[in-house]
Amino acid sequence: MDRYMHTVQYYETDKMGITHHSNYIRWMEEARVDFLTKIGWSYDKLESSGIVSPVIGLDCTYKKPTAFPDEVYVTVSIEEFKGVKLKIGYHMENAKGETVFEGHSMHCFLNENGMPIKLAKEFPGFNAALLKYMKDNQE
Amino acid sequence: MDRYMHTVQYYETDKMGITHHSNYIRWMEEARVDFLTKIGWSYDKLESSGIVSPVIGLDCTYKKPTAFPDEVYVTVSIEEFKGVKLKIGYHMENAKGETVFEGHSMHCFLNENGMPIKLAKEFPGFNAALLKYMKDNQE
Amino acid sequence: MDRYMHTVQYYETDKMGITHHSNYIRWMEEARVDFLTKIGWSYDKLESSGIVSPVIGLDCTYKKPTAFPDEVYVTVSIEEFKGVKLKIGYHMENAKGETVFEGHSMHCFLNENGMPIKLAKEFPGFNAALLKYMKDNQE
Amino acid sequence: MDRYMHTVQYYETDKMGITHHSNYIRWMEEARVDFLTKIGWSYDKLESSGIVSPVIGLDCTYKKPTAFPDEVYVTVSIEEFKGVKLKIGYHMENAKGETVFEGHSMHCFLNENGMPIKLAKEFPGFNAALLKYMKDNQE
Repeated sequence: MDRYMHTVQYYETDKMGITHHSNYIRWMEEARVDFLTKIGWSYDKLESSGIVSPVIGLDCTYKKPTAFPDEVYVTVSIEEFKGVKLKIGYHMENAKGETVFEGHSMHCFLNENGMPIKLAKEFPGFNAALLKYMKDNQE
Repeated sequence: MDRYMHTVQYYETDKMGITHHSNYIRWMEEARVDFLTKIGWSYDKLESSGIVSPVIGLDCTYKKPTAFPDEVYVTVSIEEFKGVKLKIGYHMENAKGETVFEGHSMHCFLNENGMPIKLAKEFPGFNAALLKYMKDNQE
Repeated sequence: MDRYMHTVQYYETDKMGITHHSNYIRWMEEARVDFLTKIGWSYDKLESSGIVSPVIGLDCTYKKPTAFPDEVYVTVSIEEFKGVKLKIGYHMENAKGETVFEGHSMHCFLNENGMPIKLAKEFPGFNAALLKYMKDNQE
Repeated sequence: MDRYMHTVQYYETDKMGITHHSNYIRWMEEARVDFLTKIGWSYDKLESSGIVSPVIGLDCTYKKPTAFPDEVYVTVSIEEFKGVKLKIGYHMENAKGETVFEGHSMHCFLNENGMPIKLAKEFPGFNAALLKYMKDNQE
């Protein structure tokens, strides 16, 4: 699957002259949204199907700064998925191929009443798409 | 009425070393929310009463830069209100009393179906609070 | 010149369910940066040439809401340029061709000591590129 | 030490109706800046002393959503400090005293050439202030 590309914007920099660290969290979301679209289950479609998927945890390691107007390439991987919780990995590189960031986000799936959803049972198509991506991208 | 105070945050700066211009739009909102609370019609209360009040226009003049960790003092005024559209003015000063920013926001009032609301008829209390503030703060 | 395209991100929405109005200011910057790159004077290049170009004013008219994950197309025009101040216009459309936003930004050009630069004299190449774009895009 | 208070802003919400998760990273920074000021070593002072302190890692656990216009109370703790790296903990509660967020940020200290600084040797006052806060706030 093609990597997601984000161009660092001027408004994403801070007075240190580099990208403010909070923006990487937003690029994780951009790449995740792009990934879901590519496997056929856009976030939009998930929401209109009645699935709410909040972020329940994050971890981030900043390896190298980025700056305006760098291109940052994000590779998304499924690190863990057993039907209820989903752990997504993010690997970000600059145009020279240097790793600039590594991170993970943890998600659960809720229905509109805030109750956990068993994806395999209630959304077997989405469940299968996640498992397929996980298998296809195993190292 | 007391002015609203915002402390410039590190994440609001950009690589020029000063506050990024987009943040003033957010401080206008912060000061407007604070103003509505002070006149007894918090935005929260407006929304739960079924009033939606989108921003339909803005203008901004940047007079002097601000930087982390400056304190910025915002004075809110009602520039125009005839029952349907509301024009709010914002005057921002730094701690030395120098003007750093002048701006306006234009708003309308809609019900939950997106139809314009006549405040005087449907929300006379809110209408009166706006007119009173306007009168009390006339120069 | 090709229009600049921005995809509305989830993190750009607010509890009204639509794009928060402050983000359009950032898209104006994105489109302006893209425009400068296309005429051969990237913001990056301007800054490394010693030109600082702060935003001194803005105006915005919100015509129609946008929402996640809409594509927004931005056309940039030079509304006024007489060598010292630059007024840029922004016209934004959704994928259906409906106007969603109109706005302007006003800029000046300073050297690193904060003194105004006469572009025609000190940066004739950049001056000519702006005038050429202005002429080529006249209606 | 008094907790830091942040009021959730309208522009910090997203279409789920709650605070977008990326904002907690910014509140961590707000609380950290406030903490440094309270121990007498404001970030401003650190920067003008020639200390650069980038974020090198983060972890976040989202316990309960917050929404506009909630008050969020942040307690800062020093989780680890041995003179080179600093690990700061953040505990956030809502007005009812419920935990809404737990997180950590990891920092290093660099001089203006990007080389690591030994705080005990080069900035003994700052080093002592960190150790004192750590000791005073041990459970």
